[in-house]
Amino acid sequence: MPSVPPVEYADAGPEVRAVYDDMMRTRGTDWINNFWKALAHHPPTLKRTWESVKEVMAPGTIDALTKEMVYLAVSATNNCEYCIASHTAAARRAGMTDAMLAELLAVVGMANETNRLASGYRVDVDERFKAAR
Amino acid sequence: MPSVPPVEYADAGPEVRAVYDDMMRTRGTDWINNFWKALAHHPPTLKRTWESVKEVMAPGTIDALTKEMVYLAVSATNNCEYCIASHTAAARRAGMTDAMLAELLAVVGMANETNRLASGYRVDVDERFKAAR
Amino acid sequence: MPSVPPVEYADAGPEVRAVYDDMMRTRGTDWINNFWKALAHHPPTLKRTWESVKEVMAPGTIDALTKEMVYLAVSATNNCEYCIASHTAAARRAGMTDAMLAELLAVVGMANETNRLASGYRVDVDERFKAAR
Amino acid sequence: MPSVPPVEYADAGPEVRAVYDDMMRTRGTDWINNFWKALAHHPPTLKRTWESVKEVMAPGTIDALTKEMVYLAVSATNNCEYCIASHTAAARRAGMTDAMLAELLAVVGMANETNRLASGYRVDVDERFKAAR
Amino acid sequence: MPSVPPVEYADAGPEVRAVYDDMMRTRGTDWINNFWKALAHHPPTLKRTWESVKEVMAPGTIDALTKEMVYLAVSATNNCEYCIASHTAAARRAGMTDAMLAELLAVVGMANETNRLASGYRVDVDERFKAAR
Amino acid sequence: MPSVPPVEYADAGPEVRAVYDDMMRTRGTDWINNFWKALAHHPPTLKRTWESVKEVMAPGTIDALTKEMVYLAVSATNNCEYCIASHTAAARRAGMTDAMLAELLAVVGMANETNRLASGYRVDVDERFKAAR
Repeated sequence: MPSVPPVEYADAGPEVRAVYDDMMRTRGTDWINNFWKALAHHPPTLKRTWESVKEVMAPGTIDALTKEMVYLAVSATNNCEYCIASHTAAARRAGMTDAMLAELLAVVGMANETNRLASGYRVDVDERFKAAR
Repeated sequence: MPSVPPVEYADAGPEVRAVYDDMMRTRGTDWINNFWKALAHHPPTLKRTWESVKEVMAPGTIDALTKEMVYLAVSATNNCEYCIASHTAAARRAGMTDAMLAELLAVVGMANETNRLASGYRVDVDERFKAAR
Repeated sequence: MPSVPPVEYADAGPEVRAVYDDMMRTRGTDWINNFWKALAHHPPTLKRTWESVKEVMAPGTIDALTKEMVYLAVSATNNCEYCIASHTAAARRAGMTDAMLAELLAVVGMANETNRLASGYRVDVDERFKAAR
Repeated sequence: MPSVPPVEYADAGPEVRAVYDDMMRTRGTDWINNFWKALAHHPPTLKRTWESVKEVMAPGTIDALTKEMVYLAVSATNNCEYCIASHTAAARRAGMTDAMLAELLAVVGMANETNRLASGYRVDVDERFKAAR
Repeated sequence: MPSVPPVEYADAGPEVRAVYDDMMRTRGTDWINNFWKALAHHPPTLKRTWESVKEVMAPGTIDALTKEMVYLAVSATNNCEYCIASHTAAARRAGMTDAMLAELLAVVGMANETNRLASGYRVDVDERFKAAR
Repeated sequence: MPSVPPVEYADAGPEVRAVYDDMMRTRGTDWINNFWKALAHHPPTLKRTWESVKEVMAPGTIDALTKEMVYLAVSATNNCEYCIASHTAAARRAGMTDAMLAELLAVVGMANETNRLASGYRVDVDERFKAAR
């Protein structure tokens, strides 16, 4: 059970409804997932978080599918069950195939392994990497 | 100072040299970075890790640049200084621009934020996400 | 199912009962939560952990409610389901309202975001911050 | 060296200067720390992040000092060197004493310990905690 | 529900069956756990991961039981529910008693606590530790 | 620079000196490392942490070397620079060879990899693992 009661559309005030409406319009969907219904308990957090997500996830020099896969990579690294579930769904909607999921998670696993090898051996950063921008 | 002395090419045995040679050939470079010189202290780890990285990072259904950006996203999430430095360099070599770096880190930051909001509010996974593959 | 059978009061030896009694007295409650029943399988861990928690969480220059909110902030960052559940309950008992929970998690989310931006961009620590105590 | 060149006030465009000005005015300071100079390379990230931080860190039902201490608690948990340095400084400016720092870090340490005991023992969430809001 | 359908032995192709057979032979068991059935969806990941695990977990200068306990220590630190469950079972098969589990988790908890105290206080690495190999 | 001035033996009060003396006697050394000098700023934290570490790290059903290696495994997973340095030194004093360090870090790396594969694929815990104690 979530820490605050989820806010359903029917019970929402105008500030929350405006965010829900924009969310469904932007995504082309007709429902709101539980994450946002929890945030809606505190409308400023709902509005700020949604506007930030909308801005950050919009296609730019990186396309929408790649952004969703990066989101999933971070969520798998942090072991966030809700986020893995929701961003796997989002990445699939954006075009991620089973093979792409497998390759993505292989990279995530490998990065998590070599991160600890580098830290555990206390490897010095190469001068060339320090200088590089 | 690293926990084990780095193994330079000149001092390496044939097993380590074979890996170093394959690494430089595969990457089209003429030097070995400190991470591998530390692993070389234990040749089976060097060989296994390199072969795994080579297999995982090869372009497949996900291209090489995207894979490097995912590697960087994981390393930034884990706050691994060496890995952030080396994979920023690798991603730039593969074509990542300043604008792409900025968009990538914006997604990484946002994912780390919403991961904690989802966990902190104990949000239930939506039935649609559970069912989705 | 936990990795060890929980130790109920009725089945506990005198060393465990003494800790349980002190815990209920200190907290003004009449039950023991599952965390302690697991630790009770190894009485020295139960006793040491309880005495440490009791000392650390006692009001001092920081009040009890703030300490509980910090505990929850750490648990949300680590994504520990049990700990989020138990410390949300503890913070509420100490006076945390829905609005405070929302503000707390907003700070936790923001800190987790900017932590990765600072690491990902490899930002140098400002001289003024190094010098500051 | 950071991954992008820091943007100094003298070299900044009007969009970045507007954020820098608001930041110094809000904080009552006359300098910009390195974190923001890195973000300024991508003005939309600078603007969005600053506005979010300003909103989230403003005193509300939780006071400014407590919010800074929570920020520091998260940064210590994530082991983010830059963030620990900058938010220790910010918390001290807001009134954190040495004794408060010690008590804060004691809670952070204890929470990180018991988080792993709860996870490691696979403790079931108590029914009372599930039901509680 | 996992993100990909688990691959059962009866439905597996020869490449996957070869790995499953080697796994059961190496472990002296007659079943495959869900982790591998998920990886089997992408046979190269299954094969590479199994061969790496088999090599890394084989007794060497560190015995098999100690290696399993280290695996469990990492999994508890990362709060990975599946991994804690599977490696608790593996460690028990290798000889870990209840008392050993309790001592192991006590070390894991303590290390997670002092890690944050060291980071939070920004403790300088002692010269003797820098020099030591 | 640490967040609080380190407390040297010569400047320490009797409560801190008593801990320092016990620490040097227990370890058979004649110096105090920086971690404890930072904690000494808050004597109750120094005393509580030292007594906990002494109890937890004493040989029991798990020997002292294994405990030090587990401490190092956790510290590498958390990427705590100070802790990796100090516990590598401690493990070496307790008998860890270069080969053992290499095998230890290989297990740590592998566990961090498979932890993310298990989470990322949302693998269901096998019934046999749930039932097992």
